[in-house]
This record gives sequence, C-alpha cells and structure tokens, in this order.
Amino acid sequence: MSFHIQCVAFLGLGLISGSLAKALRASGYAGELVGYGPREPSLQRGLALGVIDRYSLDLDVVIAAADLLVVGAPPMASGELLADLLPRVQRSPHQPIVTDLASIKGWVIDRAACQYHRFVPGHPIAGSEDSGIDAARDDLFAGREIILTPSGETDASALAQVTAMWALTAARVIQMPVDDHDAALAASSHSPHMLAYALTMALAKDPLQSMQHGGGALRDMTRIAGSDPVMWRDIALTNCVALLRAVTSVEAELSHLKALIAAGDGEGLTAYFAHCRNVRRDHDLLLNPLFEPAESPHEIPQ
Amino acid sequence: MSFHIQCVAFLGLGLISGSLAKALRASGYAGELVGYGPREPSLQRGLALGVIDRYSLDLDVVIAAADLLVVGAPPMASGELLADLLPRVQRSPHQPIVTDLASIKGWVIDRAACQYHRFVPGHPIAGSEDSGIDAARDDLFAGREIILTPSGETDASALAQVTAMWALTAARVIQMPVDDHDAALAASSHSPHMLAYALTMALAKDPLQSMQHGGGALRDMTRIAGSDPVMWRDIALTNCVALLRAVTSVEAELSHLKALIAAGDGEGLTAYFAHCRNVRRDHDLLLNPLFEPAESPHEIPQ
Repeated sequence: MSFHIQCVAFLGLGLISGSLAKALRASGYAGELVGYGPREPSLQRGLALGVIDRYSLDLDVVIAAADLLVVGAPPMASGELLADLLPRVQRSPHQPIVTDLASIKGWVIDRAACQYHRFVPGHPIAGSEDSGIDAARDDLFAGREIILTPSGETDASALAQVTAMWALTAARVIQMPVDDHDAALAASSHSPHMLAYALTMALAKDPLQSMQHGGGALRDMTRIAGSDPVMWRDIALTNCVALLRAVTSVEAELSHLKALIAAGDGEGLTAYFAHCRNVRRDHDLLLNPLFEPAESPHEIPQ
Repeated sequence: MSFHIQCVAFLGLGLISGSLAKALRASGYAGELVGYGPREPSLQRGLALGVIDRYSLDLDVVIAAADLLVVGAPPMASGELLADLLPRVQRSPHQPIVTDLASIKGWVIDRAACQYHRFVPGHPIAGSEDSGIDAARDDLFAGREIILTPSGETDASALAQVTAMWALTAARVIQMPVDDHDAALAASSHSPHMLAYALTMALAKDPLQSMQHGGGALRDMTRIAGSDPVMWRDIALTNCVALLRAVTSVEAELSHLKALIAAGDGEGLTAYFAHCRNVRRDHDLLLNPLFEPAESPHEIPQ
C-alpha cells in the first residue's frame, strides 16, 4: 500500500515527531508537513530548520488542513490532547487519520476515551537521551521497530496508511495487543531506564565520587539517565503496574546474583554470565540495526 | 620522566595487554615487545598481527630478557601468576619492573604475597565486551584513566617508568589506595555489570520475549552482559565485599524509585530523574573522552 496522504500535521514538535518529519522529507515524500503546538518557539525553530513547511497555533485550522494528524507529546500530554482531538476530528467532514507516538498505549487510549476508528495508536521504539526539535534526525527510525496497537474496530485503510508512512522511514512495523505492548516495553525499555536512574543516584551519593573513575561500561549504563525527566515521570506513572512488575523481576535476578557472589559460587556465576552473553549476542543485530552485517557474526534471531 | 625501557614482556596476550602493546607501538616506542603465555595460538596470532615482535613459552627466558613485565590476565590468574613470578624476579640479577592490569587490586596483591618493591599494581579503566588479541585496539586507553595503587614501599623509579609507559597511550594516570580503588570500581564498573547481567537474565526469562522489542536503551544497558564470563566470575569473587555493598546501594535506590512509582508521586519522580540527568551530564565528557568538545556543551567536572 502506498502512502497517499497529502498533508501530515504534527501536534507537538520534538525529537520523535521532528525526526519523523525529517525522515518523511528525506524519503522524498512530497506532501505538506504542518506543525501545531503550544509553544511557538519550537514551531518557529522547526520551520527555520526546514523540518516543517508551515505551522499554525489554531487546532481547528490544522485539523481542516490535514489528512493525517500525528500526536507527538509525552504520554500524559498525548492522552490529554487525544481526549480533546478525537471528538473534534470525529465531527469533521473529512475524517482525518490520527496516530500518536507515545511510549505507553493502554493509559493513553483509555485517557483519549473516544472510539474514533481512524485513530491508530503507535509507538516507535527509538529515541535519544537528547530531546527537542534540534535533536531530530532523519535516520532515527532506520531498522528500528514501530509497534502499532490497533483494536478490532480500527479502520483498515487508516491502519494501512500509518503503516505505509512508517515504511518510508526504513522502520519495521509490527502490531501487538495493547497490554502486551505495555508489558513488553516495561521490560525492554522502562525498567532499564529505572536501573540507569538508580545506578546514577547511587553513584551520585558515593563519597568516593566513583563516577569519576567510570569507563565505557558506566558511560553506557548511565547514558539514558540523561533522558527527559517529564517524559519518564509520565511513563513511570502511566505504566506503573507493568513497570513495577518488570523492575521486581530484575530485583529478583540481582538477589540471585548476590547470593551466588556471597556463596563464592564460581561455577554458578560463570554459567549465569555465559548464558547472558549468549542471550545478548543473539540480539546483537536486532539491537544494533545500523551495523553492517559484516561487523557482527551473529544472526538476527527468529 | 621518559620511558627508557628496552624490552617490555606481556605475560598473557589478550584484549587489554594486546591493546597496550599496540598503543606503545603506535606511539613510536622503539623497544622490543615480547609475548609469553600458556596458549601458543594467541601468541602466534599476536605475532601475525604485529602486536608483538617475538614470543617465548619459557618464563625464565622472558624474565631474563625484559626490563618490564606486564601481567595481563583475569584477576585470579593474575594473582596466581604474580605469586609465581615475583619471587623469581626478586632473585634475578637485573630486578625488572613488574606491573599488572587486573581489575581488582586488593585480592591480587594479597594473592601475590610477595613484597617485591618494583611491582607496581595497575588497572586501566578501559575494556570492551569483546575479548582476545583480535579485539585489541591501539586507541583503547586514549583519554581513559589508569589507576596505579603503589604502597609506601613501592620503588619510585619503577612507579615512574610504569607511569611513563601509560602516558605513551594517551591515558590519564592517577594513584589511589588499594581499598579505595576496589570500592570505587565496585561502584563504577562491577555493580553496573551485575545490573546488565540481571537485566539480561530477566529479559531472557520473559515469556513476551521483550528483548525483541529493544531499542537503543536496551542495546546500551545490556552491551556489557556480553563480557567474558570467566573475567567477571573472577571480579565478582575477588571483590565480593565491595561489590555486594555497591549492588545493595543500587537496590536501595530501586526500592525508593518503586515506592515513588507505587505512590504515584509525580513530583518526587521528576525531581529524582532531573537530578540524575544533571549528574550524568556533569560526567558526559569524562565518560566520552573520545568526543570532540564541540559535541558536548558540558564541561569536564573538577
């Protein structure tokens, strides 16, 4: 299915939505890219950077102009915005497609509280510890996964167009049930962020100032502690049940590791570490999609 | 002080010792680089790669030839090797300098159990999840920290020569008391590795196979779970007291974070995450020494 949308509007222009606009433009997409948002400076910046073609501060004007509206905001703001937006587009004559980019799907869909069948909830598994339109990159989604969580009621043509849009960014588009998405992301992204935060705080309190002696391991294990605090507050609060469960499962592994260490169980530790190495290697290509295959001897897991 | 050693011998040739040999050669060092080790294939490989000039399987021959012996082995093997080596060099007429590269200093020095004053314990804070001589890189130490842990008895000229050797690799050489080293490294390196292992194992057991949906955050938070299992078993066992303490301090932070999440404390979470972001940004340049200053707006912390 080709992408036949004439005008895409971005409601909120930051790292992710800005990267999507840039990726669409870089793909040769010839339609119009319009910005809307509460903060004119970031819209002006988007215009100056050439990320969007024009912007408006009037939501009704943007709704009337766009065939596809992309809500790009932190999870809580996305839910609030959708709760306002969906009833409006439902009343509009041209019934534009709506999608969002929020890292949490259940809470956002519940908050939107509107059965608009041309709303396709989405979440690109891509990001950066940087935020804002200036950090936007046209290759942010290349090889990354985009998870869409349509329901049985979702309009098929809307789903096909959102899928076609993401295909232009060189991403891999998949579909999942909402609850599976939130649980999987709690495990693969949200709990890792909590670990990075906890590690960073423990080091910040260390009287030996041990962070001064960090190498590449600490660089990587704390990088995402530089992420946007409001975004991560939203994620922690809106996905709290799945997140607490995911953190608890890591805590159980830490307890087990401590027991092996305290018992001096060298064989147990070697087996544990070797298993982790195999698991990590099996996911090397998946986690490093920009690498050339020649750089890794490992195959993409099925 | 200039580096006036004529022949450096590497006892064990792997990622770290091989990178040191390559860095010395890349610096223009004109002396001889000799390999010794239990496994001839890795020595042959080092010779083929041009990392060393020659090798021997006879330790006495190597001791007689070298002015500086670098023990490059995992912590436990380093301790064992030093316990054998130091009494031999102590009896040798030319009293060569000895240093090591092990990530643990207290256990290794205790195991060596020999007051040889020209032994300078060392630890380069650099590594990779890859291992072996083929992964050696001549820029592995550029901008990284080398911690030496001399005692009051350590020979000043031996300390000066080991310091001068590391200066050739573009590393930053500092000195610390042994116990501080082991505690600081437990916090800044060893506990982060345990977090990466625990996270990887939790994901490996996840019925949703959530690792399949990982992005850049998971890539970085699990990279070091691909590290050498024997090396990390050694580190966990030989630095167990400091490591358990460091892991416990991260666990305490995780518990605190879970309490904030469970209480729905948005203000508390935002403040926690914002503090972590500031701490991480303050260490950006230190943790990313290969970056050009223009790539980061943050200054090196004092």
